[in-house]
Amino acid sequence: MTVDELFKEFDAKKDELLGELFEFLKIPSVSSEREYEREVLRAASWIENFLKGMGLSVERWTGGCHPVVFAEYNVSPALPTLMFYQHYDVQPVDPLSEWESPPFEPTIRDGQIYCRGAQDNKGQCFYVLAALRTLLKREGSFPVNLKLIIEGNEETGSETLVEILPSKKDRIKCDGLVVTDVGVPSLDTPAITLGTRGMVSMTLNLTGSNVDLHSGIAGGMVYNPNRALAEMLASLYEPGGRVAIPGFYDDVVETTKSEMSAFDFSYDEKRFVNVFGTLPTGGEAQFPPIARTWIRPTVEINGLGGGYTGSGFKTVIPAHALAKISCRLVPNQDPRKIANLVREYILSKVPAGIKAEITIHSGFGKPLRTSPDSRVAKAAQAATSEVYSGKACAKILTGGSIPIISELAELSGSETVFLGYALDTDQIHAPNEHYGIDRLRLGFATTARLVKLFAER
Amino acid sequence: MTVDELFKEFDAKKDELLGELFEFLKIPSVSSEREYEREVLRAASWIENFLKGMGLSVERWTGGCHPVVFAEYNVSPALPTLMFYQHYDVQPVDPLSEWESPPFEPTIRDGQIYCRGAQDNKGQCFYVLAALRTLLKREGSFPVNLKLIIEGNEETGSETLVEILPSKKDRIKCDGLVVTDVGVPSLDTPAITLGTRGMVSMTLNLTGSNVDLHSGIAGGMVYNPNRALAEMLASLYEPGGRVAIPGFYDDVVETTKSEMSAFDFSYDEKRFVNVFGTLPTGGEAQFPPIARTWIRPTVEINGLGGGYTGSGFKTVIPAHALAKISCRLVPNQDPRKIANLVREYILSKVPAGIKAEITIHSGFGKPLRTSPDSRVAKAAQAATSEVYSGKACAKILTGGSIPIISELAELSGSETVFLGYALDTDQIHAPNEHYGIDRLRLGFATTARLVKLFAER
Repeated sequence: MTVDELFKEFDAKKDELLGELFEFLKIPSVSSEREYEREVLRAASWIENFLKGMGLSVERWTGGCHPVVFAEYNVSPALPTLMFYQHYDVQPVDPLSEWESPPFEPTIRDGQIYCRGAQDNKGQCFYVLAALRTLLKREGSFPVNLKLIIEGNEETGSETLVEILPSKKDRIKCDGLVVTDVGVPSLDTPAITLGTRGMVSMTLNLTGSNVDLHSGIAGGMVYNPNRALAEMLASLYEPGGRVAIPGFYDDVVETTKSEMSAFDFSYDEKRFVNVFGTLPTGGEAQFPPIARTWIRPTVEINGLGGGYTGSGFKTVIPAHALAKISCRLVPNQDPRKIANLVREYILSKVPAGIKAEITIHSGFGKPLRTSPDSRVAKAAQAATSEVYSGKACAKILTGGSIPIISELAELSGSETVFLGYALDTDQIHAPNEHYGIDRLRLGFATTARLVKLFAER
Repeated sequence: MTVDELFKEFDAKKDELLGELFEFLKIPSVSSEREYEREVLRAASWIENFLKGMGLSVERWTGGCHPVVFAEYNVSPALPTLMFYQHYDVQPVDPLSEWESPPFEPTIRDGQIYCRGAQDNKGQCFYVLAALRTLLKREGSFPVNLKLIIEGNEETGSETLVEILPSKKDRIKCDGLVVTDVGVPSLDTPAITLGTRGMVSMTLNLTGSNVDLHSGIAGGMVYNPNRALAEMLASLYEPGGRVAIPGFYDDVVETTKSEMSAFDFSYDEKRFVNVFGTLPTGGEAQFPPIARTWIRPTVEINGLGGGYTGSGFKTVIPAHALAKISCRLVPNQDPRKIANLVREYILSKVPAGIKAEITIHSGFGKPLRTSPDSRVAKAAQAATSEVYSGKACAKILTGGSIPIISELAELSGSETVFLGYALDTDQIHAPNEHYGIDRLRLGFATTARLVKLFAER
């Protein structure tokens, strides 16, 4: 089917498709809250029925927390295999009072569907399912082998996948992985995302005295944990913004000139200042701002606290101070190795009189980078470009991390493309989440074309 | 009355006296929190009723914030005048969960009264009131003219006294000022305090972006206010503990050898480690620990905060970070001058992309130092020595500050002695504040003897 045929199909079936999506959206599959456990299972069943109905073989993978729905359609071992990843769970809805229509009653206003999950990720999951069904119905088969992996814990840390993926290594082998849980900078230009940063996080706890002390009586005598914290954290950075930890950059694969020119690092300072109210003065000054978030690793202090920070004043030298620290990583950095480097460095900076303890949090995320020349990246570029009437597709990266995708990519042995029509104004994880019907239409056509183009290469 | 008679009187009336003190302690007169305003007034009334009940003329001085209770008993213009200073307000109680008994339910364990204010300053205020009442009742009059000034904002900067004292200059004239809001190094040896440090405090607010940002998507691009805070605060100190701010030590009058020998700088490392769980590794390494808190100025970070510090993790780059900073000052440093020095220095360290704002809190406290040969110092030495059966009284200083006392000393035209039986293990300004009944007894006797001995000199 051509893009035109796909658009026509979508337009003809629009009401029917929206009816199905609304059924899915109405299920309050909030994965983080125990009282919604039944609803989460109901959403899993809804997906399973949909996939069975269109003729795929479906399995429910359990363990960890909520089930993972796995589906496949094997045409021939001679054909390449394409796998899609989505999730059927959603974020909680509070604060409820700020929703203009009830969070689980899909409501259309100005062409946008308002509902929890409308975008993240039920909307972007649904257009994939609908496109695959159309393709199979019209053409009787797929031009590739297909797999779908749709989880119910993306919003809580992918507990089930983390637990079961290693044992499913043979089942998830594929030649290309497509993750439809991201967006585009704007709807003017087609874009695909070819990499995420890795991540590791930790909590640093400092203890000085046994109890909080009076800053007059004891001030000047004990080592204030707040001072120790400031000094230790300040030592993480060189004046130019480079991370000062020895070995931190050792494994970083420097981005080549040709890679630099492949990605769209364009950056609008006026827009940045307008949106954020400040200039991009952090990080490594020698790299362009966007490059610092896409291709450079970071150490960020996500939180710090110690002593009294309320109104007025309290003459205290606190017994404790703490910081939350995270690193974003780029190829070829290993999160466990970096975690140990950071820990050892910080512990080497503890002054006499202060005890320090570092807890490294679970959920290590490896960095992920896909070659623009890989089969799946080329198919995705061509497909998005086609639905935009031939307009060139921008190749971008994101500074964010989706730890489970790195794992999925590694175990499946495939290159990974992030695809989707999310916008940063969709209010995901917030009241009044919404997604445009026009974007369902784009996603529907893009998915179907991607499958075809992946087969042709 | 002799010391023996005073001890007998206390022992005979102990239950009655504790009953009265507990009434006073139960009033949660937290001066810094608006919701306790009524309770603060209730504490003021309690004091007024007590003083009226014993026959003093009482006035309520208002203005600024909470009222000041002023009382006097004029015998003859030919006699010298002795003035006592205390406060009836207390510190906040957080963290509430760390109190072993509720903070405003006085509870006796092992001879110690546990309650917010048990020591600071309700306990030490109460023994003065009780001793004066006993003296007046037994002897029908005082051997000197007496004044009491008891305020309700000591913990917040003495706002009311700061405002009204200049206009009360004639009312507070006296020949000796006794402040019962301090302690002794140990209960083995009698000691009086002949000096305090000055103080000035400020709040530093940093702002980066308009809103909290995602540390993946934006990390490495904006200047994290937490990083800026750590770097700016770390720059306050040289590696050896000396304050790095240029000019900070310029006006410090170095303590002479003869002064050094008049004061008791002795320090027991074993005891220190035992009590505080850490070594005195802070401050200027080249000075003995006690000297660092008595005769050397400091800069301390009393609080710092920014971003997420709860359990688990949040991938945030906060829009704001803040710190609470205070300086303790010694003769001849001027708090306003030091405040400006510190502010200018910190503002010179603000990195590009960060906005900084510094609010200097009111309640500038000048450092204070009294001659050991003054009338009130000699009377205090003799009285404390008497209650210790003639044991020599040590002369000490304190690292703490009672900003308003410097002002009160200056305006009243008197020399000032700090007296009291606080111990550094009393956990004032912290959970489980406590004070010993044995110390109420010592304070009761010392106060009464001091009045007599001040008259005799």
